[in-house]
Amino acid sequence: MARMSKPEHGGAVRAARRTGRAGVAPLSAPASLSAPSPAMTESHSPAPEPCTVALPDPFRLFRGGSLHQARIAYESWGELNPARDNALLLFTGLSPSAHAASSERDPSAGWWQRMVGPGLAIDTRRYFVVCINSLGSCFGSTGPASVDPATGERYRLSFPEVAVEDIAAAGMAAVRALGIERLAAVVGASLGGMSVIAFATQFPLAARRLISISASPAASPFSIALRSVQREAIMRDPDWQGGHYPPEHPPRAGMRIARKLGTITYRSAAEWRVRFGREPLTGNALSMSPFAPRFAVEGYLESQAERFIRLFDPNCYLYLSSAMDRFDLAAHGGSAAAALRGVSAEVLVIGVQSDFLFPIDEQAAIAEAFRANGTSVRFAPLPSLEGHDAFLVDIPHFDAEIRAFLR
Amino acid sequence: MARMSKPEHGGAVRAARRTGRAGVAPLSAPASLSAPSPAMTESHSPAPEPCTVALPDPFRLFRGGSLHQARIAYESWGELNPARDNALLLFTGLSPSAHAASSERDPSAGWWQRMVGPGLAIDTRRYFVVCINSLGSCFGSTGPASVDPATGERYRLSFPEVAVEDIAAAGMAAVRALGIERLAAVVGASLGGMSVIAFATQFPLAARRLISISASPAASPFSIALRSVQREAIMRDPDWQGGHYPPEHPPRAGMRIARKLGTITYRSAAEWRVRFGREPLTGNALSMSPFAPRFAVEGYLESQAERFIRLFDPNCYLYLSSAMDRFDLAAHGGSAAAALRGVSAEVLVIGVQSDFLFPIDEQAAIAEAFRANGTSVRFAPLPSLEGHDAFLVDIPHFDAEIRAFLR
Repeated sequence: MARMSKPEHGGAVRAARRTGRAGVAPLSAPASLSAPSPAMTESHSPAPEPCTVALPDPFRLFRGGSLHQARIAYESWGELNPARDNALLLFTGLSPSAHAASSERDPSAGWWQRMVGPGLAIDTRRYFVVCINSLGSCFGSTGPASVDPATGERYRLSFPEVAVEDIAAAGMAAVRALGIERLAAVVGASLGGMSVIAFATQFPLAARRLISISASPAASPFSIALRSVQREAIMRDPDWQGGHYPPEHPPRAGMRIARKLGTITYRSAAEWRVRFGREPLTGNALSMSPFAPRFAVEGYLESQAERFIRLFDPNCYLYLSSAMDRFDLAAHGGSAAAALRGVSAEVLVIGVQSDFLFPIDEQAAIAEAFRANGTSVRFAPLPSLEGHDAFLVDIPHFDAEIRAFLR
Repeated sequence: MARMSKPEHGGAVRAARRTGRAGVAPLSAPASLSAPSPAMTESHSPAPEPCTVALPDPFRLFRGGSLHQARIAYESWGELNPARDNALLLFTGLSPSAHAASSERDPSAGWWQRMVGPGLAIDTRRYFVVCINSLGSCFGSTGPASVDPATGERYRLSFPEVAVEDIAAAGMAAVRALGIERLAAVVGASLGGMSVIAFATQFPLAARRLISISASPAASPFSIALRSVQREAIMRDPDWQGGHYPPEHPPRAGMRIARKLGTITYRSAAEWRVRFGREPLTGNALSMSPFAPRFAVEGYLESQAERFIRLFDPNCYLYLSSAMDRFDLAAHGGSAAAALRGVSAEVLVIGVQSDFLFPIDEQAAIAEAFRANGTSVRFAPLPSLEGHDAFLVDIPHFDAEIRAFLR
């Protein structure tokens, strides 16, 4: 992918790094300056390409191996102040792009549209918000679907293992490339929330505030099992072809199963009882096959999966899913508390009582690990009904917590 | 399948029905007299064939259609008393056979080995215990893997839709064929627990005691979603071939995914945290593939799935899984309470607090529906850690409740 970048763009970013000037210029760069990422080309998405910055070359990975000419895609909102101390770095969950909210370049709604914007809880009048696409993903950042500059072919399974620590480190490198050395805040939910604590252990002095939402200090065997089955569904689809599927013919059946199962784990039984009950599925979606979907909830899963498989690269899914399994904060010093020694930030840890994928005691454990070091922590266990994905849906509860903490 | 039965066997059972004599004789029939069921032939299982009884011909199904020459496989333990009033009918969950406990014919351990036997909670010195293989299953009872006598071919998807009501009615017909008109007790867990309440609504006066364990009065959208994904994994496996797979080449990949997901839903996150934690997988199971199983919990899922796909017919799985989705006790009269009007039995309803597939409030609703009719009900919400499958594992808690109730 890096090979495909226009030299003008990379040069501008490198100049920004050298001079320490903020990377605001790329924000207004026309879409034509951005390199099309392979995954986005496959998706036929009308969204403009995100800006990218170069990672240090080589970029060494936590579990071994390194990347050359790697890049991180990002979007930004608001303005970096002259002191360069109002930047807020936002990490995403497993599947979103850096498009957290609408912008001039891309007016479509983002994945956290009601949280990031002027006057919203993450207030872009006050913060220079930078959302990054995770290393290993497929929305402009270097990942398994990118072209390896050494071979001119896609990495596929030759991509080195990506750890949550690498996602965090790539986020820090990306903001450094924009001329930012110290962050006003680092925020993320789900995989993004794990990235926040992986950031804290690697850069304990780099942020004034941390918000980790619906994360885990180490994946539980239950969540590992659920992701393992998703990966197996992809890998047992004959169309996966050992990772060598043509971009236009990915393992759709396996991705569909994986995403449906993922969707189930992201919400809660209680929400669905209210939302779908036993309503029958109506309309075109109901075929005559004896085991065709009959219930509204099945139609919902189908629409979620259908949208996802058009967008996400299967190998990237395998890499990021595995990264979540292997993450263990205690690997940094022997315990979660040891891992967070010396963190200078104020911390907000949010969990959701109906989350069964990353249950509330895991967020309580994160808060406790900070607290054990004397760090100032607020732990907010929210009563939201929507499970792991509540941060996307239950805006009132999340808005109140985040707004108060960032004030 | 009925075509394959030796006339001697069918004749003996029919004679038992005519004379009203108990079907104890088939219990001691040599295995060679039993017809091999297709599914068992495929499984290469060394277990002897179960006895079978004929269902009324035609056997009409709850949602339409009827079966001819249909049979129900059963096993029995203990002896029917002269008054013929000590029979206990046991329904199974989705996947077990009628082999609930070891017997002279089949000394291998059964699926409820520690619960059914002399001196155990379901005491075979006192009760004549009859466990049936569900209609639509593949362990000797007529189902989609059986041969349709009208065509000489397997039914496959031409099998009529099976409802939980049909499983219950076939159970009643089976014990009638053994000369039993009134039951001392009807017991079942999971799908079996749903069969117990489907039995109660159809035969309100036929049992003195009912025990419904970890059941639901109507599947929740969450459990529907989880089963829907399992079915889709099977049907999207190219080897499924629209249901026309050769018996020796079933859709193994889809069945493997389905069973792994099922296994996840049958236990609890809390149990797995204790049992597996983040222990790595060791030994041969770990391959060098980058996404091969790494954690002990993944090895457990693999061993569970491997065993299952050797035994269970995929089309039967689809039928029984769908039956669980569609079951709705309220269909019998407009509400769960109306459905259970006039039930003369004493009732024990057991639920498990860690069950997230059939959560405890669903068993509470079953108990309440009986109670609304003035029926004597004990509701036992158990603290077991093992989730939906606790009845198979947490014997002390279940033994205490069932033993006290059946005394």
